[in-house]
Amino acid sequence: MTTVHSPTRALTEALIRRASVTPKDEGCLELIEERLAPLGFRFERIEANGVSNLWARRGTARPVLCFAGHTDVVPTGPIVEWESHPFDPVERDGYLYGRGTADMKTSLAAFVTAIEAFVAAHPDHPGSIALLLTSDEEGVATHGTKIVVETLAARGEAMDFCVVGEPTSVDTLGDMIKNGRRGSLNALLRVIGVQGHVAYPQLARNPIHLIAPALAELTAIEWDSGDEYFPPTSFQISNIHSGTGATNIVPGSLEMRFNFRFSPASPAEMLKQRVHQVLDAHHLHYEIDWQLSGNPFLTPRGKLVDAMEGAIEAATGIKPELSTTGGTSDGRFIATHCPEVVEFGPVNASIHKVNERIAVSAIEPLSVAYRGIIERLLLA
Amino acid sequence: MTTVHSPTRALTEALIRRASVTPKDEGCLELIEERLAPLGFRFERIEANGVSNLWARRGTARPVLCFAGHTDVVPTGPIVEWESHPFDPVERDGYLYGRGTADMKTSLAAFVTAIEAFVAAHPDHPGSIALLLTSDEEGVATHGTKIVVETLAARGEAMDFCVVGEPTSVDTLGDMIKNGRRGSLNALLRVIGVQGHVAYPQLARNPIHLIAPALAELTAIEWDSGDEYFPPTSFQISNIHSGTGATNIVPGSLEMRFNFRFSPASPAEMLKQRVHQVLDAHHLHYEIDWQLSGNPFLTPRGKLVDAMEGAIEAATGIKPELSTTGGTSDGRFIATHCPEVVEFGPVNASIHKVNERIAVSAIEPLSVAYRGIIERLLLA
Ligand SMILES: [Zn+2]
Ligand SMILES: [Zn+2]
Repeated sequence: MTTVHSPTRALTEALIRRASVTPKDEGCLELIEERLAPLGFRFERIEANGVSNLWARRGTARPVLCFAGHTDVVPTGPIVEWESHPFDPVERDGYLYGRGTADMKTSLAAFVTAIEAFVAAHPDHPGSIALLLTSDEEGVATHGTKIVVETLAARGEAMDFCVVGEPTSVDTLGDMIKNGRRGSLNALLRVIGVQGHVAYPQLARNPIHLIAPALAELTAIEWDSGDEYFPPTSFQISNIHSGTGATNIVPGSLEMRFNFRFSPASPAEMLKQRVHQVLDAHHLHYEIDWQLSGNPFLTPRGKLVDAMEGAIEAATGIKPELSTTGGTSDGRFIATHCPEVVEFGPVNASIHKVNERIAVSAIEPLSVAYRGIIERLLLA
Repeated sequence: MTTVHSPTRALTEALIRRASVTPKDEGCLELIEERLAPLGFRFERIEANGVSNLWARRGTARPVLCFAGHTDVVPTGPIVEWESHPFDPVERDGYLYGRGTADMKTSLAAFVTAIEAFVAAHPDHPGSIALLLTSDEEGVATHGTKIVVETLAARGEAMDFCVVGEPTSVDTLGDMIKNGRRGSLNALLRVIGVQGHVAYPQLARNPIHLIAPALAELTAIEWDSGDEYFPPTSFQISNIHSGTGATNIVPGSLEMRFNFRFSPASPAEMLKQRVHQVLDAHHLHYEIDWQLSGNPFLTPRGKLVDAMEGAIEAATGIKPELSTTGGTSDGRFIATHCPEVVEFGPVNASIHKVNERIAVSAIEPLSVAYRGIIERLLLA
C-alpha cells in the first residue's frame, strides 16, 4: 500500500532524501528546476568556489518578488541519537522527522508548490516571481546568497520584495515573522602590558589591572535603548584570557573577544568609535581586530510585511508577531539590494538538533501562506 | 702547582662540588659537622619526610644567636649555557662561578669560618651559637626550617637572634640587609554565571560582566600606605580565564588567581575580609580558595639590626640599607619563634640563573661580617 502525500510533503520528502550536508547540494537544485521549468522559469547558475547557486525567474516586469533559501543542512550529529534515519523522512505522532524538515527543505517545497498553484491560476500574472537558492548558508556562507546578490546588483537587476524561508515560527506555524535582524560585530582585543614578578609590581604593567576600569565602563554602557522593532544593542564578552598559570608572574598581555548584536540605531562604526574612546581614555596600549559579520537590516511595516501578515492569518488563523531577535541569516545580504525583506517559515525548536521535525499539519498551510503572499503582492 | 685558597673559599668550593639539587643535601651537612665537631658543637638531626635537618649548638646559656641557611640549590638549567660546569667551581675575572656560589654555599662556609675564628679567640664565650640548616628551602620548604622551629618551640628551646644567610646584597656585598619580609597570600577565585548564546544575553549571566565592576574596585584599592619598613601592600592578579574560545558563547564561569604581598599593617584576615566585602557588594556567586604562603615579619632597629649594621660596615666599609622587599624566605618560619631575625648575604644578581657567581673579593669579608655579629651580640 502506497500512501499518497500532499504535493508539498511529497517534494519535502524527496529533498530530505538528498543528504545535502553543507555546502553540498546533492541534486536538490535540479529537482526544483525540474518542477519550475514547465512553468516557464529561466535558470541561471552563479558559481563561486565550487558552490552552484541558482537564480530562477519567471517574467521580466516589476515588481520582482523573490523567494530565498538554502538546500544545505547542518550535519546530523550522532546518528544513533536519531529515532529514525535523518535522511529517511518518517512520520510519527503527527510529525515528519528528518534533517532539513524545519531548516529548510519544507520551505523550499512550499515555495515550489505555492508558485505552481499561483501560476496555474494566473499564468499571465503581472511582475516577476524569482527564486534565489544556495547550498552555502549553514557554513561560512560567503559563496552563496552574497555572491548572487552582488551579481544582480552589478547588472542592475532589481528585486522588490524578498521572502526568506528560514524557520521563524516559535510554538506554532505563523506565530512569528522576522522583519529584520540585528547586526553582529566581533572583536579580538589584545592589551599589552609588561611582564614581571608579583613581588616587584613596580617593574611590571599588569594588563588585567590596566583593563579593569575600562572593562567596568564597557559592561555598564547602555549602547542604545532599542526601538519599536529592535531590542537594545547588546555587548557580550565571550572570552578573556591572561596569565601563564604561574601564581607569581604578572602577565605581559591579555586577550579578550567580544561581540555586539546591534540595531540600526548604533551603526558598527559608532560602536567601534565608542570602544576606542573608552580604551584610549584609560591610556591602554592595545591592538584590536574588528570583524563585521553582518549589518542589521529592517523592513518596517509596509507592503511586504502587510502581505505576509495577511497571508499567514488567512492560511493559519494566527496573527504573527514581528521580531528582529536571534542570529544572523542570509537576509543581511539580500537587504543590501532589496528594499523589503522578511523571513518566515516553520517552527524552529528542533533545528540543528537530532530528531529535527515539522508538524505534518503545518506543511500545506506553509505553501498556502506563500501563495497568499504572491497573490497579495502581484495581483493587488 | 696547587693554589691555596682562603679558608672560606676552600670550604665554599668543597660545598659546591656536592651537587645538592633541592631537596638533596649530598653530604654538605656532614662536611659542616666535621668542621664544627672539634669546636664542641652538639648536633641534632630533625627528620621530616626524608629531609634531614641539622640543629647544631655550642653552649647552653642565653642569648642564643643562630645562623640559618640551606644546603640545597636550584637546578642548573641547561648545562650548555654555563661557561664552566656548575658543580666544578672555577675562578674567572675575579668571580668564582658555580651553582650555589651566591645562594648560599658561600654564606654557609662563612658561617663556619666565622664561628671557627670566634671560638678560637673566645673559647668560653657567653651565650650560645647555633646553626639551623636544611636542604629543603628551594622547593616547597615544608619539611625544612619550619619543622626545626616547631620542634624547638615545642620543647621551649629559645632563640634570641637569627641571621639568615640569604643573598640580600644588590650591587656590592653589604649594601642591603633584609630586616623583614612581606607576607604572601594567594587566592583562586571562581565566579559562577550562566552559560548561553551571545544572541540571547537575557538568558545568560556573563561572569566576565558580573566581575567587571568588582575588578575595577579591587585594582583601585589602596590597601595600606606602607610604613618606615614596608612598601604599600600590593595586590596583583596573575591569571584570569573565561570563555570556551567560541565567539558566540557566553561563558558559564570565570577563574582568576591573585596574590597579595602584604605588610603587618594589613593582616591576611583583613585582606580576605575586604575582598569578600567587594565581591559580596556586587552580589557575585563565587567560590574562593585562600592559601597563605607566609605571614610578614619585621625586626625593627634594635640589638640585632644594630650589630649587623656595625659588623657589615667594619668588614666592608659600606653602610647597609634596610629593606623588606622581594620574595619570601625561611625567615618567615624563624620569626614565629625568634624575636629578632635578619637576612644578610652575597649579591643576588646571578641567583637561580646560569653562570651563578660571587666576587672573590666578597668571600672573606662575608666571614668577617658574620664574625663581627657574633662579637657584638655575645661579648657586648
Ligand atoms: Zn536555515
Ligand atoms: Zn636561598
